[in-house]
Amino acid sequence: MHEFSDDRSELIDLEDRMDSMHEECGVFGVYNHPDAANLTYLGLYALQHRGQESSGIVASNGEKLSRHTGMGLVRSVFRNIEMMKSLEGPHAIGHVRYSTTGSSSPTNAQPFLIDFKAGQLAAAHNGNLVNTDALRSEMEADGSIFTSSTDTEVIMHLIARSKYPAMEAMILDALAHVKGSYSILFLSKDTLYIARDPWGVRPLVLGKLGDGGHCVASETCAFDLIGAEYVREVLPGEMIRIQGDRIDTFQIPRFEPVSNPAHCIFEFIYFSRPDSFIFGENVDKIRRKLGRQLAKESPVPGADFVMGVPDSATTAALGFAEESGLRYDIGLVRNHYVGRTFIQPQQDGREFGVRLKFNTVKGVLKGKKIVMVDDSIVRGTTMKKIIKLVRTAEPAEVHLRISSPPIICPCFYGIDMPRKTDLVAAGMSVKEIEEYLGVDSLGYLSVDGMLEATHMPKENFCQACFTGKYPIEI
Amino acid sequence: MHEFSDDRSELIDLEDRMDSMHEECGVFGVYNHPDAANLTYLGLYALQHRGQESSGIVASNGEKLSRHTGMGLVRSVFRNIEMMKSLEGPHAIGHVRYSTTGSSSPTNAQPFLIDFKAGQLAAAHNGNLVNTDALRSEMEADGSIFTSSTDTEVIMHLIARSKYPAMEAMILDALAHVKGSYSILFLSKDTLYIARDPWGVRPLVLGKLGDGGHCVASETCAFDLIGAEYVREVLPGEMIRIQGDRIDTFQIPRFEPVSNPAHCIFEFIYFSRPDSFIFGENVDKIRRKLGRQLAKESPVPGADFVMGVPDSATTAALGFAEESGLRYDIGLVRNHYVGRTFIQPQQDGREFGVRLKFNTVKGVLKGKKIVMVDDSIVRGTTMKKIIKLVRTAEPAEVHLRISSPPIICPCFYGIDMPRKTDLVAAGMSVKEIEEYLGVDSLGYLSVDGMLEATHMPKENFCQACFTGKYPIEI
Amino acid sequence: MHEFSDDRSELIDLEDRMDSMHEECGVFGVYNHPDAANLTYLGLYALQHRGQESSGIVASNGEKLSRHTGMGLVRSVFRNIEMMKSLEGPHAIGHVRYSTTGSSSPTNAQPFLIDFKAGQLAAAHNGNLVNTDALRSEMEADGSIFTSSTDTEVIMHLIARSKYPAMEAMILDALAHVKGSYSILFLSKDTLYIARDPWGVRPLVLGKLGDGGHCVASETCAFDLIGAEYVREVLPGEMIRIQGDRIDTFQIPRFEPVSNPAHCIFEFIYFSRPDSFIFGENVDKIRRKLGRQLAKESPVPGADFVMGVPDSATTAALGFAEESGLRYDIGLVRNHYVGRTFIQPQQDGREFGVRLKFNTVKGVLKGKKIVMVDDSIVRGTTMKKIIKLVRTAEPAEVHLRISSPPIICPCFYGIDMPRKTDLVAAGMSVKEIEEYLGVDSLGYLSVDGMLEATHMPKENFCQACFTGKYPIEI
Amino acid sequence: MHEFSDDRSELIDLEDRMDSMHEECGVFGVYNHPDAANLTYLGLYALQHRGQESSGIVASNGEKLSRHTGMGLVRSVFRNIEMMKSLEGPHAIGHVRYSTTGSSSPTNAQPFLIDFKAGQLAAAHNGNLVNTDALRSEMEADGSIFTSSTDTEVIMHLIARSKYPAMEAMILDALAHVKGSYSILFLSKDTLYIARDPWGVRPLVLGKLGDGGHCVASETCAFDLIGAEYVREVLPGEMIRIQGDRIDTFQIPRFEPVSNPAHCIFEFIYFSRPDSFIFGENVDKIRRKLGRQLAKESPVPGADFVMGVPDSATTAALGFAEESGLRYDIGLVRNHYVGRTFIQPQQDGREFGVRLKFNTVKGVLKGKKIVMVDDSIVRGTTMKKIIKLVRTAEPAEVHLRISSPPIICPCFYGIDMPRKTDLVAAGMSVKEIEEYLGVDSLGYLSVDGMLEATHMPKENFCQACFTGKYPIEI
Repeated sequence: MHEFSDDRSELIDLEDRMDSMHEECGVFGVYNHPDAANLTYLGLYALQHRGQESSGIVASNGEKLSRHTGMGLVRSVFRNIEMMKSLEGPHAIGHVRYSTTGSSSPTNAQPFLIDFKAGQLAAAHNGNLVNTDALRSEMEADGSIFTSSTDTEVIMHLIARSKYPAMEAMILDALAHVKGSYSILFLSKDTLYIARDPWGVRPLVLGKLGDGGHCVASETCAFDLIGAEYVREVLPGEMIRIQGDRIDTFQIPRFEPVSNPAHCIFEFIYFSRPDSFIFGENVDKIRRKLGRQLAKESPVPGADFVMGVPDSATTAALGFAEESGLRYDIGLVRNHYVGRTFIQPQQDGREFGVRLKFNTVKGVLKGKKIVMVDDSIVRGTTMKKIIKLVRTAEPAEVHLRISSPPIICPCFYGIDMPRKTDLVAAGMSVKEIEEYLGVDSLGYLSVDGMLEATHMPKENFCQACFTGKYPIEI
Repeated sequence: MHEFSDDRSELIDLEDRMDSMHEECGVFGVYNHPDAANLTYLGLYALQHRGQESSGIVASNGEKLSRHTGMGLVRSVFRNIEMMKSLEGPHAIGHVRYSTTGSSSPTNAQPFLIDFKAGQLAAAHNGNLVNTDALRSEMEADGSIFTSSTDTEVIMHLIARSKYPAMEAMILDALAHVKGSYSILFLSKDTLYIARDPWGVRPLVLGKLGDGGHCVASETCAFDLIGAEYVREVLPGEMIRIQGDRIDTFQIPRFEPVSNPAHCIFEFIYFSRPDSFIFGENVDKIRRKLGRQLAKESPVPGADFVMGVPDSATTAALGFAEESGLRYDIGLVRNHYVGRTFIQPQQDGREFGVRLKFNTVKGVLKGKKIVMVDDSIVRGTTMKKIIKLVRTAEPAEVHLRISSPPIICPCFYGIDMPRKTDLVAAGMSVKEIEEYLGVDSLGYLSVDGMLEATHMPKENFCQACFTGKYPIEI
Repeated sequence: MHEFSDDRSELIDLEDRMDSMHEECGVFGVYNHPDAANLTYLGLYALQHRGQESSGIVASNGEKLSRHTGMGLVRSVFRNIEMMKSLEGPHAIGHVRYSTTGSSSPTNAQPFLIDFKAGQLAAAHNGNLVNTDALRSEMEADGSIFTSSTDTEVIMHLIARSKYPAMEAMILDALAHVKGSYSILFLSKDTLYIARDPWGVRPLVLGKLGDGGHCVASETCAFDLIGAEYVREVLPGEMIRIQGDRIDTFQIPRFEPVSNPAHCIFEFIYFSRPDSFIFGENVDKIRRKLGRQLAKESPVPGADFVMGVPDSATTAALGFAEESGLRYDIGLVRNHYVGRTFIQPQQDGREFGVRLKFNTVKGVLKGKKIVMVDDSIVRGTTMKKIIKLVRTAEPAEVHLRISSPPIICPCFYGIDMPRKTDLVAAGMSVKEIEEYLGVDSLGYLSVDGMLEATHMPKENFCQACFTGKYPIEI
Repeated sequence: MHEFSDDRSELIDLEDRMDSMHEECGVFGVYNHPDAANLTYLGLYALQHRGQESSGIVASNGEKLSRHTGMGLVRSVFRNIEMMKSLEGPHAIGHVRYSTTGSSSPTNAQPFLIDFKAGQLAAAHNGNLVNTDALRSEMEADGSIFTSSTDTEVIMHLIARSKYPAMEAMILDALAHVKGSYSILFLSKDTLYIARDPWGVRPLVLGKLGDGGHCVASETCAFDLIGAEYVREVLPGEMIRIQGDRIDTFQIPRFEPVSNPAHCIFEFIYFSRPDSFIFGENVDKIRRKLGRQLAKESPVPGADFVMGVPDSATTAALGFAEESGLRYDIGLVRNHYVGRTFIQPQQDGREFGVRLKFNTVKGVLKGKKIVMVDDSIVRGTTMKKIIKLVRTAEPAEVHLRISSPPIICPCFYGIDMPRKTDLVAAGMSVKEIEEYLGVDSLGYLSVDGMLEATHMPKENFCQACFTGKYPIEI
């Protein structure tokens, strides 16, 4: 349920918007290609689903960094040739960002660009640190000033304060002091630094361009668009330095041992695009297995067909259908021209936000016993409206199946989720949610089933939002 | 394959854009509702797939008509409260428009609004007249001036020149002289006139709002969004006048007998939204039957699965899967944030337009024998690029199935299609197209099969683009 | 007191704005120059003081006319190279327009462009017809439709309805039927027609470009900007046709004799730029003589100095100073960055509009007996505020002198003025106005003095607004 | 010769623009008024002549500061009610800025806003520091990061690094370390701090609003617009703290004695608005005296009249006329709608930039021996074009008089001037400049004459640009 965002009009569906999770960011970088800024633009374009609030690019011509950022979609922020031409040089990094309403501000748009003792340095960060408040207070006490509310500025301060002489040592020194998730790119006038936290919470992949150029992205779908070749994942705890013809890798210093990665399982469940390859696997393949497992755990005997809530739950619904032997069908269509408007009818505004985006296919639903698959339930308010909408098409029964376990705890590693008290599953049993939503039955995937479905080591995933066990101390 | 349109940037995929058909228009009207302009805005919003080039609304407060039109999507043209507030009064009609590049111009944006002897009159027209050149020449010879290149202005001249005293008689008189397709709305200061050509080429449906209000739309999906109730189709050859509390119907005078309707079958195949109900049937249901019939006529034994070209061919693909017993799957994903950009990589621009919109799901396609369903092939250039893109995911075999017959003749009744010489099926045999596209096999639906699949009288459809038999003389 | 207009914000000083007169339009045309649209843009730029509400250009490449118009200043309407490039060809006409609030509408933007039996024709009109209501009713009764509320559309209908075969005859035939003021340009695909009403109410001058090109403008200041050479005035009642290498002149047919021209004296008093040469004279020179005559008729013995209300009354004030032997000084400065804003302080909004534009030079005014010269008083409300503002700088005495007679009747020939009841001099004696404005003395120029000051034949000027004697029957 | 700037189009007259001096900034602040942000908007509006590149406001509601800044004029940056509403609270500071092309960037827009150990603090600075490079290097070496290239960020760092506990002590501590010119406002959540460098280089005045509110501005013209009352100058070396009902003043610590103020004499000559009162004097009065002195030093016997280059030299020209007994006249008019465009004629682009802004009044100039007064000559290129333009009107003789001495050295205290090698008077004698410009004679004001004309102590002015003696070590 990615949402369309646009800088020109007010939101009607604010409540609906708050009722889904949001990835905080996507990052993309190019090193040594004549078309660096343009390729970065296109990479961000492909990663737009990871953040629609602000977009930005910093480029380097080897001497000087230039920057353009703004609120809105990539195509709104970079809307003419002149803007792109000012971003000159063979190296560039870019960023798309989603943020909570409170801290939505132009000064938080990334990449962040500073001048400091070692020259200019830009950073584009996906993730969330858990010890920035402490670090920030400490540095403020010591006389530092902050012009944004981003974690990135804290990292920049740490770099600038490092006593090491070389840039890579300064960055490693800084990263050794932060805790939390980061898939982060740094660009100096002539060097690209790529780093990923020791838990590998967010995805980060390395690619190859023709003629010796390199690229890096949150997801491989960005490589597909620009015709780049996937090379490998950036490893958890690894920092890669690309400088001229050399590629060197460094280990980010850790003061405590990290036994396992803690990949965000929600990247598979919902965030990443199905055509991406992350954490060493096809998103589509895992998402389908989640659907299959769900069918095993929570079958709906005698159902007429299986449908997904478009577009994000479609793949899981296909998996459910395959496993159960039920027919897959489309009972909800999504209007892709829309998603928001500043107009609403005076009566019946209540479910209008949902109706703007979805409509039922009445002939398909009428009188049928249906299995409806979605990927997750956060507050439950939007799902309640979707069920109500579906009921207007008069299906006989609606059985809701969720391809993830109940979300009972918030995320602190880079996903924007409501507080615990607003998570429907934190306060209600499955039975109670079933009743609240008005479905004939409700089935969630089990935590174990979910992890098994990945066919990857269970201990390699963060499952904090389902269990409250946080792999990185908060 | 509806395209996203936006007024802020240049098109990169012009060629791709030219390689699909475009509906010329969608219309929507409200009579007697305090929120008329806002409901019209929302109705147009739901009909946006029928035209993305320009949008407009005319409203009446009972005394005076006000108008706002512009180039671009509904949400771009009407982007603040002030614009909506100026459209005051309980009656309104609106229009969304696509047009060929040549005549794309602000002066052609509808609704058209005139002053004439009987006061103010606005018109919103979906369709295409075939005798306007003659009428226009005649009127110009007689001293008329034209400020646009639309058919609608011709109709307005005919109305103004009518010698009848009453408005409905003037309109009927005018419509008696035009030939072609029209689903047209007229709004005077206090009356709404709704008319449909004797062949009923384009859809037009009547609805009911709460509290005695009426509405009219190209498709029922617009009613669903605003919570209106479907009443019935406007009949071919019928004109409805809504004035105060009265609804009266008139027969549009015909000088030659019209034996059968000539509904545009492409409304079922591609144009209308699947959740709409038009020509007395669910679009989704017919589209699915077309897929079933296609599976009967052109099966692919031993295929691994069936997929559609998203989003328009999805339903037909589901029908094909059901009939054939094959699994339905998703091998292409569509990026709904995009569709256009002014940037493209310097190398490999050739297929870039297609890659902006689509990406393959490699794990699904690799090594598989696939059936790919699309609704139609126009020039064939875009399909060739899609096939090339699909091949990069290394399927074993690609069998293309089209849920309509080969298009060999252009449309003159309201669909924007290339000239005959640019229609791939007009110049090549199926075998040759198969080779040109690079597919392992290609199967079109037969004309008879297509018509049978509708379970409606065959003679009630226009099939000119497949057969060259034009039901309305051109 | 020309006002700055801008399309982006609301007006705060609406009342002030209504308290001055507005010229309805300025026109400019180029024939046979490779840079026609660009030169027209610049010509309109120089004529911007004649109309700030909408701007437009039509160009011809010899085959086809293209048009771009919009609401706002020239630089807002034509704000990028692409817009200019679409206006291709060696011939172009352009228009700037002011209009009363009521009829401010994009559909009224000029040049007006039509298709009719003789092809395409565009028109740009400065002036106002007095018999259009009758003509319009007549034509509507005969079946014509109108898409705007401009006089120009009426003229276009007359041309299209003419039975003459040649374009120049059609235009002459049309002009023979209209009554009122017009300085009008017509452009067909290959010919420029220039016409001026038999009374020569509005100015219109002919110029020469290098390399055989021709140009035409409302005022010569437009020639100065583009480096064109002034040739002569277009004569009252003359139509000039420029076609290829030929220039031909025609007499516009008149059904009643016209004994004298009726040049608008307000063009000298206020509208035209002081650096222009119109009606065969320097505007600056006449304006200065008006000031001299005012000093003779209405001296202020013992005054310390003379100042003008900037910028329009500066020249008359200089004339007054010269004649009276008094010092000229600057006691009011004008802020040229401003003129409008959507913000105003919550208290004291009353005089804020005036303070936005003007500020006093306190040291100059304090304790002095001053003569303040302005060009005219319409409603008197703005002048009252200016006087109040000037009083805050504590001058000893304020003697107001107006370089035109009291305005007691509205204009019907192209100047936007309030109704008679809103003209302060129509309802009050000079003594009463003196009191109302709060000045120590008030002196207007006499009608005779004004006419004598021009040193041109008195009977050659329209003086209707001062005397109520309308030279063209209304 | 203030220039109009607008964010929508490219500059045609870049060269001309570079040939004048630019004030770097204007500041305005309000403390304790319900309408604080709106009044600040209007204050900036009145100070727009001091900077047209970027504008910004920070407001405080007592708890939290909010900020809006952007590139462009005040009315462009704040163009709707919503933008103003977000700036809530009774305290606000604002800034308009001009900058050299190189460092023109959104991140340099002021007011600058930071978070640091003592909370939020915003700053708006007019002036230029001469020791920031050293301070910046020092702080960077110590681990600080910089996100802009402004002096203000350096001051903010100094404040944050201060070891004093109270905000006013931190600010005083910071200011003690900087050298150069500053008229600067700081706003914390509940306190306004106003400081001016020990030399009082730039003006800064204190005002009073009704109901106990306070305001501060670069020039008094801003008070006049909003109806505030002038209280007094902020003294050189003074810091004023306004907090709740208290106003306290502090002395900024100085490590070296400052014997005299060093007011920028160019504020009188050119920058400030004539209706402002700064440095304890009316700008208009001083400017007029400069003209009188010029007439004494450099008379033009037998001249027909005196004219100024509009608008900035008008007052000096009046003074020249008074002293010499010559008539004042207007031979050049300025088009205030314009100043820039992206179009220029293909031929004769050379002087086009000047012709866009000026036109001659031919009747006034022809055959006359004229005295033309301007305030200063920087590069001389624009003046050369103006003379050439004036010559086209065929005056008999043109005698140029400049109401300031030859500029031979650049300014380091807040005025943007070209390098020494580009200053025409640094490389040529008066005789040579006379010849270069093509005037019959050229006369500059003497340094002594200029200083005497102020009737203020000579040693209180900075005259570095005329003499190279810099009062603040650089």
